[in-house]
Amino acid sequence: MDVLRWEKRQLLLLDQTLLPHRIEYLTCTHYRDVAEAISLLQVRGAPAIGIAAAYGYALAALNYQEGKGGTLEDYLKKAAEELGDTRPTAVNLHWALEQMNRVYQTVKDKALDEVREYLLEAAKGIHTDELRLEERIAEFGSSLIPKGARILTYCNTGALATAGWGTALGIVRTAHEQGKEVKVYVSETRPVLQGARLTAWELHQAGIPYKLITDNMAGYLFRQNKVDLVLVGADRIAANGDFANKIGTYNLAVLAGFHNCPFYVAAPSSTIDLDIDTGEEIPIEMRDPQEVRMVGSQLITIEGCPVLNPSFDVTPHQLVTAIITEKGIIKPPYDLVKIFTKEGVSR
Amino acid sequence: MDVLRWEKRQLLLLDQTLLPHRIEYLTCTHYRDVAEAISLLQVRGAPAIGIAAAYGYALAALNYQEGKGGTLEDYLKKAAEELGDTRPTAVNLHWALEQMNRVYQTVKDKALDEVREYLLEAAKGIHTDELRLEERIAEFGSSLIPKGARILTYCNTGALATAGWGTALGIVRTAHEQGKEVKVYVSETRPVLQGARLTAWELHQAGIPYKLITDNMAGYLFRQNKVDLVLVGADRIAANGDFANKIGTYNLAVLAGFHNCPFYVAAPSSTIDLDIDTGEEIPIEMRDPQEVRMVGSQLITIEGCPVLNPSFDVTPHQLVTAIITEKGIIKPPYDLVKIFTKEGVSR
Repeated sequence: MDVLRWEKRQLLLLDQTLLPHRIEYLTCTHYRDVAEAISLLQVRGAPAIGIAAAYGYALAALNYQEGKGGTLEDYLKKAAEELGDTRPTAVNLHWALEQMNRVYQTVKDKALDEVREYLLEAAKGIHTDELRLEERIAEFGSSLIPKGARILTYCNTGALATAGWGTALGIVRTAHEQGKEVKVYVSETRPVLQGARLTAWELHQAGIPYKLITDNMAGYLFRQNKVDLVLVGADRIAANGDFANKIGTYNLAVLAGFHNCPFYVAAPSSTIDLDIDTGEEIPIEMRDPQEVRMVGSQLITIEGCPVLNPSFDVTPHQLVTAIITEKGIIKPPYDLVKIFTKEGVSR
Repeated sequence: MDVLRWEKRQLLLLDQTLLPHRIEYLTCTHYRDVAEAISLLQVRGAPAIGIAAAYGYALAALNYQEGKGGTLEDYLKKAAEELGDTRPTAVNLHWALEQMNRVYQTVKDKALDEVREYLLEAAKGIHTDELRLEERIAEFGSSLIPKGARILTYCNTGALATAGWGTALGIVRTAHEQGKEVKVYVSETRPVLQGARLTAWELHQAGIPYKLITDNMAGYLFRQNKVDLVLVGADRIAANGDFANKIGTYNLAVLAGFHNCPFYVAAPSSTIDLDIDTGEEIPIEMRDPQEVRMVGSQLITIEGCPVLNPSFDVTPHQLVTAIITEKGIIKPPYDLVKIFTKEGVSR
């Protein structure tokens, strides 16, 4: 099942807010449809958001009407800003929009229809490249998974969050396919329940054994010695290895550290933001209090209850056993500037 | 608002599963009604369960029909077993039933109606004694609360969980009344959401400033230096100070320890079980998987999703800064046998 699909000059997005109860695709014909879908978490997961934004940029070129005031360049700039403003924490979004802008800059003197074609091809390229990277991440990551490992994972980092295979959950899928007989604990991931709704569904589809827990049960599992390793994704990784990920990731990192349990982060290198030195600089998105007050259509507390709703937290690199990227497995000390500029990843 | 009320030979229980949306009382005329209410969490919280069970025992004496085969003693024994089997972790339940049995043993040779009267008075005595203890716990505990403290609390340990004032939340209430200007972070406490449904409601009623968080946000708060102390209740405390409490308590204890934040446990001494040496021996109740799969009437994952649902976890005494009881504040080393047998608390 495709998470994103380009079809007849439209971007189709699997509406993840309806899963696992309903499978419905949104049709995006305008870049603003894509921006809205990202804001509403209909498409989510740092890599998938990046791909969606790239298609959104390509859509903007299609949406542009010549001779209606303003240049294509201005129009694309505005579209990129609107797409980029939807979610502040994940950096893949900004990375993808920058890639698209670079392509635009190289082809901008061509005829409009040609420019549109180039941008669409660029978006498709980001999509297919990403899938290839995920397969590499999964291969590298699986080498860290012992046979029979009991893996605790968080949020959703599977096909739904990415180009189609997954980062942290992609590793689980590859380990499973390699016959490693892994078992997974899925943390439900309040408030939006990406674990309960999406990861459980993906693992069920893939036939990988799992159990769902509430987020507060992780300590119990560690103390009972039921977890061999923790595997999470990332929304942004700073140059020193600190990283932002779904709220609650930091809890797991502290618990894993306390119990001497390996804690791995899996992400494509587009998640690494070498422009920031430490996790302290990562902007944390605060979302609608209703996400905490409600579960689906159900109010779980008193009306208007005061709420805190940070969507992400930052885990310091000291708690990270290794970062798994498409370039390989990175272990401390995390001098990512040195590693990734040497490898030719632009700063 | 009374959580439990004896009226016209009936026990009225505020149905806590309907809060905060509806205020309804259950009428218990048979001890089995009480047992069912405890099983279904319509009455919950270790102290409140103990009081309910004591009234249940008194009800059993009323339910007993002379001359219908079997003695009153057998009938009460069966009732105590059924009441005691409802929830295995909290020890107050068993403590209260033992108290009732002791009273029965001293009056059993009296006329049936007199026995009934004695047992009812004993249950009322447990209820009013408990309220007095809670006030003492709150006084002792409040001495540990600095002015302006930002307190993280868990589950519900307020009026609803107890005889009417609270243990951990009773301390918060007393500190508030003493003008300490405390602020509270309420962790929602999945799966049954006692924090979101009950604690938020109690704090709102009491006019104490608070914010609701999902359980996985605790680490974020600690890291942002927004918590001055953690205050939780207990369902059973072992002789060495290890204690069982609502699932997720252990996560908070590890996080508090990692951030050098004081972590206090508040409970009446009836929660201390000197018959067990360490927390490893505390039986942990596993509850219905549907509690995790559902929020209210809403399915949050796939049907029949494999689930783990331990209702409690055990926190080792090494992570506890102090235990606050009606006898005073106990600091490490926790030799509770010495302290409580010396103080005349029977083993």
